[in-house]
Amino acid sequence: MFTVTVRDSMMVAHSFRGEVFGPAQRLHGATFVVDAGFRGAELDADGIVVDIGAATALLHAVLGELTYRNLDDDPALADGNTTTERLAQVVADRLVDRISAGHLGSGAGRLSGLEVTLHESHIAWASYERAL
Amino acid sequence: MFTVTVRDSMMVAHSFRGEVFGPAQRLHGATFVVDAGFRGAELDADGIVVDIGAATALLHAVLGELTYRNLDDDPALADGNTTTERLAQVVADRLVDRISAGHLGSGAGRLSGLEVTLHESHIAWASYERAL
Amino acid sequence: MFTVTVRDSMMVAHSFRGEVFGPAQRLHGATFVVDAGFRGAELDADGIVVDIGAATALLHAVLGELTYRNLDDDPALADGNTTTERLAQVVADRLVDRISAGHLGSGAGRLSGLEVTLHESHIAWASYERAL
Amino acid sequence: MFTVTVRDSMMVAHSFRGEVFGPAQRLHGATFVVDAGFRGAELDADGIVVDIGAATALLHAVLGELTYRNLDDDPALADGNTTTERLAQVVADRLVDRISAGHLGSGAGRLSGLEVTLHESHIAWASYERAL
Amino acid sequence: MFTVTVRDSMMVAHSFRGEVFGPAQRLHGATFVVDAGFRGAELDADGIVVDIGAATALLHAVLGELTYRNLDDDPALADGNTTTERLAQVVADRLVDRISAGHLGSGAGRLSGLEVTLHESHIAWASYERAL
Amino acid sequence: MFTVTVRDSMMVAHSFRGEVFGPAQRLHGATFVVDAGFRGAELDADGIVVDIGAATALLHAVLGELTYRNLDDDPALADGNTTTERLAQVVADRLVDRISAGHLGSGAGRLSGLEVTLHESHIAWASYERAL
Repeated sequence: MFTVTVRDSMMVAHSFRGEVFGPAQRLHGATFVVDAGFRGAELDADGIVVDIGAATALLHAVLGELTYRNLDDDPALADGNTTTERLAQVVADRLVDRISAGHLGSGAGRLSGLEVTLHESHIAWASYERAL
Repeated sequence: MFTVTVRDSMMVAHSFRGEVFGPAQRLHGATFVVDAGFRGAELDADGIVVDIGAATALLHAVLGELTYRNLDDDPALADGNTTTERLAQVVADRLVDRISAGHLGSGAGRLSGLEVTLHESHIAWASYERAL
Repeated sequence: MFTVTVRDSMMVAHSFRGEVFGPAQRLHGATFVVDAGFRGAELDADGIVVDIGAATALLHAVLGELTYRNLDDDPALADGNTTTERLAQVVADRLVDRISAGHLGSGAGRLSGLEVTLHESHIAWASYERAL
Repeated sequence: MFTVTVRDSMMVAHSFRGEVFGPAQRLHGATFVVDAGFRGAELDADGIVVDIGAATALLHAVLGELTYRNLDDDPALADGNTTTERLAQVVADRLVDRISAGHLGSGAGRLSGLEVTLHESHIAWASYERAL
Repeated sequence: MFTVTVRDSMMVAHSFRGEVFGPAQRLHGATFVVDAGFRGAELDADGIVVDIGAATALLHAVLGELTYRNLDDDPALADGNTTTERLAQVVADRLVDRISAGHLGSGAGRLSGLEVTLHESHIAWASYERAL
Repeated sequence: MFTVTVRDSMMVAHSFRGEVFGPAQRLHGATFVVDAGFRGAELDADGIVVDIGAATALLHAVLGELTYRNLDDDPALADGNTTTERLAQVVADRLVDRISAGHLGSGAGRLSGLEVTLHESHIAWASYERAL
């Protein structure tokens, strides 16, 4: 099994609802350094799992919808807290939507899964893995 | 599948028995930077796998029993070498013991596994994964 | 010359005024991983520049006034943008204020300077150095 | 499951054939920071998955055949592009060949798998996992 | 004194002349992760040393002249080995040339120095500092 | 000014005398990831500040006298605590001794200074700079 991973980041404001979050219930923010790993069992004729330039552009496009924003104002995210683990899922699902819509070209047919990791600090991060 | 990971560290002395260890048979020491990953298939109503503050406190408590000590003097570890891979297992098993004893609260029921990685230097580390 | 550095982090929301900031004029956020370096020309009788535990506590206290907040609402920061470089200066100056007020004990007399670095992402950071 | 990982690096020149590679069709180069993870379900009597010194030497020997070379001139690699993902597979397969030839000693019988990751920059890396 | 640093990378082939280089006399390659630090004693009215977006674009333009190439073929570099330390100087000097030509706008007048670091692997890097 | 830096590590046991150290008064240990930076104002005819292979070997030799040992038993270190900052000084001074004894060859005449950093964990490190 192969995995090709690219890194980018986003900088967002948000707040959490629920006593478990303590001071993070206040409006605050985060830089999320985001790693998106594209998995596949075989290489194509060019010797790649995915075009790394296309994968980088795809991740950048998905993060572009989130970065430099207050996520509390985003209707698409209003049904729950934008925790690190949920945002990892949001990013992964949106990558899959764009792949399904053809944004990685024909080669995307070889991909079998995605793993997205959001690093929220030097001591905490969260991942979400899913099939494709 | 989600994984939420927190990082802490411990600083210990120890020595190894067995020719395979060469100079590490002498009393020496290590900083272990420790990553504990909590896995679960679903998020709870707050949008989390685990309360990251509680997970951080749990890891800190487990490492607190080991750090700033000579592990050669610890009766609980006397039945074998405290190699990086064995200590990863020790930390994981002790995290599970505390989770089973209720230290993560009711939410721990959603957790399905743990992965603990101990970094012993910039060029070597070891992990242990187990179900929960 | 010796420098002892400790790392912590803060998670804040803010926005910037000025066309140069482009989309960062919107309310957004950042995790700042903060390194505070304490400089001195000599070691004391214990062999240290600064008590690393005290230095860690000092940095944590300074960051505690900023983290999990919207910096746009902080009157003490209202006279300018809370850019990474300015926040590095704010953190450094507040560390010096606390050192001057005796929070590092008598040993602080040996310190000659501070360097504070704020990492805003994996590809950008800013530092501020000052005498003490 | 245990995994013990060691890190080394290699510095190579190469070029790629195929329009998908854009400017990387030109002769260029890369430092690959290489992580080789050795997996096994159990520890031996010494408390190890693999002798970390032997694992380090094994990885160094495999990378020694590739580093400081133009991979375009290597007949063993002539049947395809030396992309990061393919090189991860090459390194993993060569590690397995040497393990099968006895280079890790009798203990290698406990190993069940290998994972090799090649970091090509601060924002891109590729892994290959295989059974052993 | 403030320093704002941005990171990018380049991937090049090259070879060295001179027995001191051993196997690096062969054509090989490197990824250089490049950190460019812009220094200044004061912040402007916006609270910045340099527009971080403009600094990032400037570094990317300078690296764009070097990346995905065999540096042995570059006439501008033909008068000596393209060692890591010399390339740090080349990048720094080219950044200064572009700053002098107005590529950072009027704000560049506040800059007093540059520091460029090229990381060639996880265990070696070189820096060059100069006034501006 | 140029700086060429190489990284290695050592794993030691030690204990500290003095109440300021709290639990670190007990026998414990540390991995120190060690960065040694060699400074010089000019490049030689080969385009280097220092032969990076020779610098790596020099650092490895100095660390070889310390690693895999209990520093409490080393008579050469008996006159004070082996804190991170003092060990940075010890490593720097020993590098200078060996350079003065000719271990870097004739090229060492160009070197003007050294900076040694010891990382004791992911959140603490200490440096010592000196002229040469």
